[in-house]
Amino acid sequence: MNYEAMDILFELLGTISFAFAGSMVGIRKSMDLLGVVVLGLVTALGGGCIRDLVLGNIPPQMFRDSKLAIYSLISSLILFAIFYVKFDFINSRTMKKIEKIMLLFDAIGLGAFTVTGINTAISMGYESKFLLIFVGMVTGVGGGVIRDVMAGNIPVIFREEIYAVASFLGALAYIMFFKTDINKNFLMIITFSIVVIIRLISLKCNFHLPKIKKI
Amino acid sequence: MNYEAMDILFELLGTISFAFAGSMVGIRKSMDLLGVVVLGLVTALGGGCIRDLVLGNIPPQMFRDSKLAIYSLISSLILFAIFYVKFDFINSRTMKKIEKIMLLFDAIGLGAFTVTGINTAISMGYESKFLLIFVGMVTGVGGGVIRDVMAGNIPVIFREEIYAVASFLGALAYIMFFKTDINKNFLMIITFSIVVIIRLISLKCNFHLPKIKKI
Amino acid sequence: MNYEAMDILFELLGTISFAFAGSMVGIRKSMDLLGVVVLGLVTALGGGCIRDLVLGNIPPQMFRDSKLAIYSLISSLILFAIFYVKFDFINSRTMKKIEKIMLLFDAIGLGAFTVTGINTAISMGYESKFLLIFVGMVTGVGGGVIRDVMAGNIPVIFREEIYAVASFLGALAYIMFFKTDINKNFLMIITFSIVVIIRLISLKCNFHLPKIKKI
Repeated sequence: MNYEAMDILFELLGTISFAFAGSMVGIRKSMDLLGVVVLGLVTALGGGCIRDLVLGNIPPQMFRDSKLAIYSLISSLILFAIFYVKFDFINSRTMKKIEKIMLLFDAIGLGAFTVTGINTAISMGYESKFLLIFVGMVTGVGGGVIRDVMAGNIPVIFREEIYAVASFLGALAYIMFFKTDINKNFLMIITFSIVVIIRLISLKCNFHLPKIKKI
Repeated sequence: MNYEAMDILFELLGTISFAFAGSMVGIRKSMDLLGVVVLGLVTALGGGCIRDLVLGNIPPQMFRDSKLAIYSLISSLILFAIFYVKFDFINSRTMKKIEKIMLLFDAIGLGAFTVTGINTAISMGYESKFLLIFVGMVTGVGGGVIRDVMAGNIPVIFREEIYAVASFLGALAYIMFFKTDINKNFLMIITFSIVVIIRLISLKCNFHLPKIKKI
Repeated sequence: MNYEAMDILFELLGTISFAFAGSMVGIRKSMDLLGVVVLGLVTALGGGCIRDLVLGNIPPQMFRDSKLAIYSLISSLILFAIFYVKFDFINSRTMKKIEKIMLLFDAIGLGAFTVTGINTAISMGYESKFLLIFVGMVTGVGGGVIRDVMAGNIPVIFREEIYAVASFLGALAYIMFFKTDINKNFLMIITFSIVVIIRLISLKCNFHLPKIKKI
C-alpha cells in the first residue's frame, strides 16, 4: 500500500470514528435526527476544515470531495437507527459499554487526524516543525472543540487532561522520524498508535495534571 | 433587472433581516446598545464571512465593502431605538407579535443568504454541486450559529428541526435548475421562496424530526 | 527604533499580556495546567489568527513563527507556578489586586493588538479605511471572545461596554493620522495609549451604555 492510499485510509478512519463519537453527544442530549447528524458532521469535518483554512488549502477538502461528508452522514444515521430501534434493549449497563466504545472511537479519530493533518501540510510543501506539529494537533482536536462549543459542553481539551497532549506526543514522534529513511506507512501507524494508546492509558489510569484549588 | 443587481438586492435583504433577528436576541437578553449592535453584526455578516474564507474570497466581502456592515448597524439601531422609546407600549401581547415578525425576518435572511452563498461560489467559477449546496447552507445558517454560540444559546440548527433542511432544499432546487435555460432572476426568487415557505410552514405546523428519548 | 521593530515589540507586549489575562480565566475556573496553557494560547494568538485568515496571510503568523506561542506558553506557566506555589499567601485582598492587574494586562493586549492588526493589513497593501479599522478591532477583541466562548463565559464584548469601543477609537485615530507626516512610532504609541486609557477610565468610572429593561 502506498503513502497516499494509507493517508486516505486514515482520513476515512478518523472521519467515521469522530462521526460516531460526535453523534453520540447529540443522542445523549436527546437531540433530534438533524442535530445528531450535524454534530457528527462538525466533529468529523471541523478539524480538517480549520486545518485547510490555516494552510490555504482552499476550498477545504470537505467542500471539494463529498466522500467524507457522506461517510460521516451514514455513520450518524446508523448510530441513530441503532438507538431508535433498539432503545428498549439499552439499559444503564449496555450504555456504559457504549460510552466506553465511544471513547475508543474518539481516541481513534484523534490519532488518525493528527496523522492526516501533518500529511496535508507536508504534501503542500510546509517544512517548519512547529507548524507541522501545531497543524496536526489542530486537526486532531479541532472537530471535538467545535462540537463541544456547539453542544454547550466544556470543550474536551479542558475536560480531559491527556487529550491534546496525546496528539502532541504523536505529532512529535512523526516529525522526529519523518526525515529518516523509516517506512512512511509504518511511521504513520506508529504515530497513530502512540496517540491512541496514550489517550486510552490516561483514561484507564485517570491521570491528572496539577491544578489550583478553588480560589 | 439583471443578475448582479438581483444578487445585491438579496444580499441586502438578508443582511437587514438577519440584523433585526440578531439584535432582537440581544434585546431579549437585556444586553446594552453595543451588545445588541454586535449580535446584529455577527448574525448578518457571519455567514458570508465563513463562506468567503471557505471559498478563498479574501478579504471577505464584509471587510472590503462597508455597505453591508452599515446597513446592519442602522437596522440594529432602529430596533434598539423602538424598544428604548416605546418600551411602555410593549406588553406580552405585542411582544408575541414582535417575536413572530422576527421569525419571519430570520426565515427571509435564511432564504436570501442561501441564494447569495451559491451565487458567490458560482461567480468564482466553482462547479461542484456538493460544494455549491454546502456553501449555500453555510452562508444561510452560519451567522445564526455564531450569534447563538456568542449569546450562550443552543444553536438554532439544533433547536429548530426544519432550519438547515429548508436551506438545503432551496439550495438543491437552485442547483438542479441552474444549468437549464430558466430565467436566473426567476430561479433566485423561487429558491428564496422555497426556503422561506418551508421554514414558515414548519414553524406553523410545529413539525418534528424523530429523536431518541432521554437515556 | 524603526517601524518594524516597534511592531514586533507591540506584538510581543500584546501576546504576553493576553496570555496572562487568558490564563487567569483558566486558573479562576480551577482548570488544570493544560487548560490554563490552552486558554492563554487562544487569548494571545486567536485574534491574530482570525486577522491572518481574513487578510489571506496564510499560514497565519502563529504557525510560521513559534516565538509568539512560546512566549505565551512561558507566561502561562509562570502565572500557574505563582498560584501553585504561593497559594497560601493569596487571600481575597491580594486576589482583588491580582484581578485588577489582569484587567490592566487585558487593556494592554487590546491596545497592542489593535495597533499590530492594522499594521499587518497596511504591510500587505490594504488601504480601505473601513477594512483597516475592522481588522484592528477583530485582532484586538478576537482572542478574548474565543477564550470566553471556550471557557463558557459571556464574551467580553457583551460584558464590557467600552471594550470594542476603545479598540475602535484607537483604530480610528491611527487611520486618521497615518497618511500625515507624523512619526509612525509615535503614532503607534499614541494609538495604543488611547485604547488603554479609554479602557481603564471606563473600568474606573463604571460607565454604562443604554440598555433595555427586562422584557
